[in-house]
Amino acid sequence: MLFFTQCFGAVLDLIHLRFQHYKAKRVFSAAGQLVCVVNPTYSLKYAPTRCAAVQASTEQGTLPPCHHHEVVHDPQLVPCTCPLFSCPWEGHLEVVVSHLRQTHRINILQGAEIVFLATDMHLPAPTDWIIMHSCLGHQFLLVLRKQEKYEGHPQFFATMMLIGTPTQANNFTYRLELNRNQRRLKWEATPRSILECVDSVISDGDCLVLNTSLAQLFSDNGSLAIGIAITTSKVHSSEAEM
Amino acid sequence: MLFFTQCFGAVLDLIHLRFQHYKAKRVFSAAGQLVCVVNPTYSLKYAPTRCAAVQASTEQGTLPPCHHHEVVHDPQLVPCTCPLFSCPWEGHLEVVVSHLRQTHRINILQGAEIVFLATDMHLPAPTDWIIMHSCLGHQFLLVLRKQEKYEGHPQFFATMMLIGTPTQANNFTYRLELNRNQRRLKWEATPRSILECVDSVISDGDCLVLNTSLAQLFSDNGSLAIGIAITTSKVHSSEAEM
Repeated sequence: MLFFTQCFGAVLDLIHLRFQHYKAKRVFSAAGQLVCVVNPTYSLKYAPTRCAAVQASTEQGTLPPCHHHEVVHDPQLVPCTCPLFSCPWEGHLEVVVSHLRQTHRINILQGAEIVFLATDMHLPAPTDWIIMHSCLGHQFLLVLRKQEKYEGHPQFFATMMLIGTPTQANNFTYRLELNRNQRRLKWEATPRSILECVDSVISDGDCLVLNTSLAQLFSDNGSLAIGIAITTSKVHSSEAEM
Repeated sequence: MLFFTQCFGAVLDLIHLRFQHYKAKRVFSAAGQLVCVVNPTYSLKYAPTRCAAVQASTEQGTLPPCHHHEVVHDPQLVPCTCPLFSCPWEGHLEVVVSHLRQTHRINILQGAEIVFLATDMHLPAPTDWIIMHSCLGHQFLLVLRKQEKYEGHPQFFATMMLIGTPTQANNFTYRLELNRNQRRLKWEATPRSILECVDSVISDGDCLVLNTSLAQLFSDNGSLAIGIAITTSKVHSSEAEM
């Protein structure tokens, strides 16, 4: 009888241990994949020509230029780079994060890998979904934009900008991943500096581009989940492999 | 003196071994990544409405339908699915490969992973780059198409079709990968059956889509290298992870 009681006790212990292990694993998974719900930013005062305006004022010597891959050697005043708003703010790179948080209420998230869950994908273009991501000692701005590059055909554009200089941006690689309905789409690139124009990056299409039907295939109940990961980039080793 | 001679001999042996190892590694890499140069197929007789024509004739009961995810239970006559050609041929699934090889001179390649190197990307739309890939006991058709979905804005569409039924196609996953200029784009999906319309897949945009500027970034000297891999698909396990 004692033998059976001991056996029963051992089985109970095993069940308890298994449950503890499962619980720990679940907590770990949840911690590894922080899901952030991002609501759209819809503005009627959409200013697609802001880049040109910045450019024009640059020619008068008041603001830094807005070119691709432009290297800014000294800290200068930068205009507000928050997309969709024609914000008159300008300030140093170091205070861009606090401006975006305080004035534009953009959330900042920490974690090696996060899931960006953009809601209400059906909203008409132009619409932006924006979040800041704090990682590896730097802050990044993720912009998902719905825009009609060709009239009547809205597309989704996703890119990541470093809140730092282009030289600093070259030290990182970001990855955006969509995974649903037996389809997977991955985009990996070096982030652009926030000193460059997010509008130009998107109009050049040098980012993750989705047409509406593909966005629908990757969406669940009107929300699009984008897995984000940032790493420090060495040489793109696999580039030579191909 | 004898000691130095022996030492020199040992060093020579080491250098020889190192060289042999390097050579073997290089041969292995080359075997793992078969590069296939694919020339464009440019036709003035582009028939984008062929799908509709097939559909219309289907309604008269002469040819199988051209729907998405349509399951064909019995072997039937299928029209020639070679894109860009308005080919009057029709035959059983089993003879599609030989028709494509003999009539349309489409190459067939074997290997787990191949690199599809499409040349002359600058040619005007519509242009197709087509190859067959023999893998895991089946034949697949890879189609890269340059097409103007929006007038004046050519885009590139790449998809993989199984030369088999939709049920057979569901057992596989294909991956297309572009990797250049510090950017990487990966598309993974279940191949469509060749019984479905390649034109519909492309017009729906349910495939790898590239705008011209991105295609240029991934191209080298006018040629675009697409890494292709096919695997047998179980449940998309990582889908649940996101």
